[in-house]
Amino acid sequence: MTEQELTDRVVASFDTAKDERFREVMRSLVRHAHAFVRETGLAEDEWTAAIEFLTEAGHLTTDTRQEFVLLSDVLGISMLTVAVNEPALDGPAEPTESTVLGPFFVQDSPEIELGGDIAGGASGEPSWFSGTVTDTAGHPVAGARVEVWEADDDGMYDVQYEDGALAGRAHLFTDADGRYRFWGLTPTPYPIPDDGPVGRLLDRAGRSPMRAPHLHFKVTAPGFHPLVTHIFVADDPWLDSDSVFGVRDSLIRPFDRHEPGTPAPDGRRPQGTWTSASFDIVLRKE
Amino acid sequence: MTEQELTDRVVASFDTAKDERFREVMRSLVRHAHAFVRETGLAEDEWTAAIEFLTEAGHLTTDTRQEFVLLSDVLGISMLTVAVNEPALDGPAEPTESTVLGPFFVQDSPEIELGGDIAGGASGEPSWFSGTVTDTAGHPVAGARVEVWEADDDGMYDVQYEDGALAGRAHLFTDADGRYRFWGLTPTPYPIPDDGPVGRLLDRAGRSPMRAPHLHFKVTAPGFHPLVTHIFVADDPWLDSDSVFGVRDSLIRPFDRHEPGTPAPDGRRPQGTWTSASFDIVLRKE
Repeated sequence: MTEQELTDRVVASFDTAKDERFREVMRSLVRHAHAFVRETGLAEDEWTAAIEFLTEAGHLTTDTRQEFVLLSDVLGISMLTVAVNEPALDGPAEPTESTVLGPFFVQDSPEIELGGDIAGGASGEPSWFSGTVTDTAGHPVAGARVEVWEADDDGMYDVQYEDGALAGRAHLFTDADGRYRFWGLTPTPYPIPDDGPVGRLLDRAGRSPMRAPHLHFKVTAPGFHPLVTHIFVADDPWLDSDSVFGVRDSLIRPFDRHEPGTPAPDGRRPQGTWTSASFDIVLRKE
Repeated sequence: MTEQELTDRVVASFDTAKDERFREVMRSLVRHAHAFVRETGLAEDEWTAAIEFLTEAGHLTTDTRQEFVLLSDVLGISMLTVAVNEPALDGPAEPTESTVLGPFFVQDSPEIELGGDIAGGASGEPSWFSGTVTDTAGHPVAGARVEVWEADDDGMYDVQYEDGALAGRAHLFTDADGRYRFWGLTPTPYPIPDDGPVGRLLDRAGRSPMRAPHLHFKVTAPGFHPLVTHIFVADDPWLDSDSVFGVRDSLIRPFDRHEPGTPAPDGRRPQGTWTSASFDIVLRKE
């Protein structure tokens, strides 16, 4: 049995699958995985190292630490999956581009009022976020669910806290004009969790684990394609070397910094500096 | 950023790796993984299913249950890795071909004398195994370590027993003429562990989890390339559909069945039927 015959036999072993899509995906997976082994002449100790890597990643993974998502992220697989699923344009306005979901999304965030604060005790410089949600024809989308989450200024998401607190995440709904506004924190750069096998892989690659500063958005509304994206902070030095390849130019916005005591759009006068950023979101019809 | 630009950026992110081989392997891994995502247009829920599959496999994996090895096995990746590492011929006699190590090898098997019994309480029909270990010029290899392991007639390896007993495995050393002999069990077909995600994958593929009956060998001697292989039972119906693609024609041997009371080569007269098989092993010089 030659190497090619072996590959052909494994590909053919999926002929009996009833689900056509499953058959197609598995055949493609086998062909590409085998091509990788042949191209590299993968050594047996390298195969063993891969098994040990996956085992360690599996043992480290819990409800709040997802090493396999990190692996997919740092290999650009998550971002490529996002890119190949970006639907075609359906109107005159450019729909907002997607980026990675990341490993820190959780289902049950608290609901806040328009203009409310998502921090919930997370530390950092206050930041006023506002914008509109419209369709690609420019019509406002009222009642869109805007889910947002971000790290605190220590670079930690709430799910990484030891006390299980919910912080730095919330959802709210756009008003009748499709507008939203809330207080969050000025995003700061932070490393993805790098104390596991993925961190060692980055270290061996001479790569930084740092993510460009961002706040996550997931925006959903009936009849529209769900949008998972980030807003990134303009002029940040990490924009060009985001560890998960998530930056898209169209998602970068200036964050204006204001002096202590300057009144915010909602009339508050934060004691320290604060920032503001605007991010208008365009959803695609389903 | 186009999809190809994304792939190029991820490939280039390994430029800073100091280890040239690591760089080469990771670049190839990224190229092939990305080609798979693009070719299939991998959907986001398929990506999520893959993450969940790996997570479940990781949580199921312990010191005695290796779901990632099973995954590699059923996708033919283990066997292909064996095949690409098969060294070139170095003498007139064909070296014995390799096959998969499998997930049931353990380091510390008991040592037995030549002619001893590896069963250690494992149930099954007795089988007399004998043969020689030579180099490719036909010279005997004295003192070669012959490590053997197999499932009992319930299809279970000792590491799958709940009591932690060592059974169905041992090692012994060839005599001055390179000969070995021992009592084992007639190999029987058995399913690979199929109560996890790999089992569900096989089920969805319409594939059987059954392995063709075999006994494992790992043969080592100073100055020789270690050999990991199996002896397979001739005429078995599972030879053509081994779930891990491990069968090679050169490794199939007849197992002769003998009537109860027939004297064995060591003078014993087993009360029930017993079988015998001969397997001459040729090692390659390092």
